[in-house]
Amino acid sequence: MPHIALPDLPGIRGPMAFRPETAKPLNDLVDVLLRGPSSLTPGERELIATFVSARNDCRYCQTIHGAIAAHHLGGNEDLVLDVKQDPQNAAISYKLKALLVIAGKTAESGKLVTADDVARARQFGATDLEIHDTVLIAAVFCLCNRYVDGLATWAPDDPAFYRQRAALVAENGYAASTLTGPTK
Amino acid sequence: MPHIALPDLPGIRGPMAFRPETAKPLNDLVDVLLRGPSSLTPGERELIATFVSARNDCRYCQTIHGAIAAHHLGGNEDLVLDVKQDPQNAAISYKLKALLVIAGKTAESGKLVTADDVARARQFGATDLEIHDTVLIAAVFCLCNRYVDGLATWAPDDPAFYRQRAALVAENGYAASTLTGPTK
Repeated sequence: MPHIALPDLPGIRGPMAFRPETAKPLNDLVDVLLRGPSSLTPGERELIATFVSARNDCRYCQTIHGAIAAHHLGGNEDLVLDVKQDPQNAAISYKLKALLVIAGKTAESGKLVTADDVARARQFGATDLEIHDTVLIAAVFCLCNRYVDGLATWAPDDPAFYRQRAALVAENGYAASTLTGPTK
Repeated sequence: MPHIALPDLPGIRGPMAFRPETAKPLNDLVDVLLRGPSSLTPGERELIATFVSARNDCRYCQTIHGAIAAHHLGGNEDLVLDVKQDPQNAAISYKLKALLVIAGKTAESGKLVTADDVARARQFGATDLEIHDTVLIAAVFCLCNRYVDGLATWAPDDPAFYRQRAALVAENGYAASTLTGPTK
């Protein structure tokens, strides 16, 4: 049961409906970062979000963003699982592997990211903007994971819920989907 | 030296100037949360931000938000130091002490916040909205701290810089101040 009286919506959607004033800019930030113009694909960016949320052990975030990543990746749920469990041996580019190292360190503490980590990402073709966005995606999901778990929100068990929701978010974006769609 | 080529501005302002598309909603979020209508004073909210940034050992964030907190608290820099070092013995309300327990746990992991922590905050008069905002402020500063340190931004040494900047932000807000004012 959530720590405070929230609207009965799963995960981050409960506190977002409770406090629309903060939900608006937070959704705008996530929309720009995960869906705006970028040389990283939406699937790659959702994989970074999923990986960080898994590292932070946030069930709602890793499941919904994993489902959205899979949606963007042609339904490849196995790849999402591989990235969560062992990204360095997953079937992803060397660039994304190097960015996930930066994301994983950022999730623990920004101070852990080294010049060598960044040089390695550049060696595989990462641009400054991609490195920036990787750090910020990791940081944003450190926010979301703590928001979701710090208020003890609930998360559905049924994988079908997340697949259905993922299709809605992938099509319409985060800001437009917060208060719409199935709740259970 | 920052890990990527950023505009020569201290702390979070470098990456914000580098990526205005994400700076805009992030500043909007911080403005609503720290300066918008709330039963927590701006000084109390800045103390929560400062406390979390100190826990995360982010020099730029704890110093600038400590200076903004002190500005709101009549220049009481000693109180800010007390809250960073030993909040349970600082000259603040029992409600704020209980909220800082929730903030500190959220900064480590949202899962650490217990129903007892929340009950204790309520016992001292905290509302659901205040508890929500405390969790979200802590989560947002986990974002900001990682953003600032994950890109290895620089921070000025001179306390006068932070006092001057604090007055500007306290008067004009975050969104309006990002690209203005002294840089060193």
